[in-house]
Amino acid sequence: MQIFTFWRSLASFRVRIGLNLKGLAPEQIFVNIFTGELQEPAYKAVNPQGLLPALIDGDGPPLVQSLAILEYLDETHPEPPLLPKDPRGRARARALAQIAAGDAHSLVTPRVRGFMAKTYNIDEAGQTLWARHWVGLGLEAIEAHLAQEKETGLFCHGDSVTVADISVISLAVGQQLFGGTLEAYPFLSAIFDRCMALEAFATAHPLRQPGAPQQA
Amino acid sequence: MQIFTFWRSLASFRVRIGLNLKGLAPEQIFVNIFTGELQEPAYKAVNPQGLLPALIDGDGPPLVQSLAILEYLDETHPEPPLLPKDPRGRARARALAQIAAGDAHSLVTPRVRGFMAKTYNIDEAGQTLWARHWVGLGLEAIEAHLAQEKETGLFCHGDSVTVADISVISLAVGQQLFGGTLEAYPFLSAIFDRCMALEAFATAHPLRQPGAPQQA
Repeated sequence: MQIFTFWRSLASFRVRIGLNLKGLAPEQIFVNIFTGELQEPAYKAVNPQGLLPALIDGDGPPLVQSLAILEYLDETHPEPPLLPKDPRGRARARALAQIAAGDAHSLVTPRVRGFMAKTYNIDEAGQTLWARHWVGLGLEAIEAHLAQEKETGLFCHGDSVTVADISVISLAVGQQLFGGTLEAYPFLSAIFDRCMALEAFATAHPLRQPGAPQQA
Repeated sequence: MQIFTFWRSLASFRVRIGLNLKGLAPEQIFVNIFTGELQEPAYKAVNPQGLLPALIDGDGPPLVQSLAILEYLDETHPEPPLLPKDPRGRARARALAQIAAGDAHSLVTPRVRGFMAKTYNIDEAGQTLWARHWVGLGLEAIEAHLAQEKETGLFCHGDSVTVADISVISLAVGQQLFGGTLEAYPFLSAIFDRCMALEAFATAHPLRQPGAPQQA
């Protein structure tokens, strides 16, 4: 098993958490998301979309898209489960994961900020405003679900970790990397602390990966 | 069963296709995505994120996020299946669906274009350029997967419809609604024609919904 990854990729962070929870440690291949390496033919032969992560596991095309990879890991390595048992619960966990990954994180990746700069001449401050806006809206929607729905437990859905926690925590770390805090989101913040107390989450953190800047 | 929907919502289009394939016809409640109705308290009580679609099915919080809803429909109404049987196949179908929904469509929704206009003073032409760029990149990535991978069949994955087709076709229709064509994507284009020949896709098309403008 091989994983194409990078310290600052929040999508790779999601898959790192899943791999840790399943006790899997594939070979890591680092692809820098800031230098254009993703768009080079060598990497596009792995993932034609030119995005991280990609997972190679046996024969067949590399697996792509973090949430699809997490479901694959859950189906091929069922313990511990990353989804609730009931269809409604699975739908809720998947929806929370998709709000974080598909409606918030995907709007603030380097390719999006780069296109804003190049095409509309939007400077660093304008890009940060953009990132904080969409990450904030995502966190706000997730907090509303967590606060209002009785399915919320010690974690996003019930009392064990699901794909919802993996994805929501990646967005929460994104908020911190963009200079924000979790103060406005008390339910999410409590779940963040609980997740980060787990080795599988803590060791997957972007700032604990090879190549990451030194922490203060 | 009740579905909150709107003709021009591509995420609602995805769920309409899934409902049709499963032979389900819930009551439809229309919420205009262009007038601020999504942000009103009445709808935010249904979906705190203020986005379409939302599905009410029995007790418990409304189901949100189109791809999570499709998986729920597939689990609660297994025939015809919307996912391949094998974990690798399911991962590929889900990944194609996520490229279209999470990495392309989510970047071009009215809330995103509205924020560009309001915050950076980007005019209609600039917004269309943005929409065409991200939809185009999504279609390009999907076309590369379809062209290169032997798992592609009459449909995106094998010879029957999966969530990949549902999501990819919604993006292809988005391309057309933003004034583009599918010419540059021959594999995708052939699958588009095959899907649109099916009643479940054709009758779910945005321009065939109540409230849609008259077709030429």
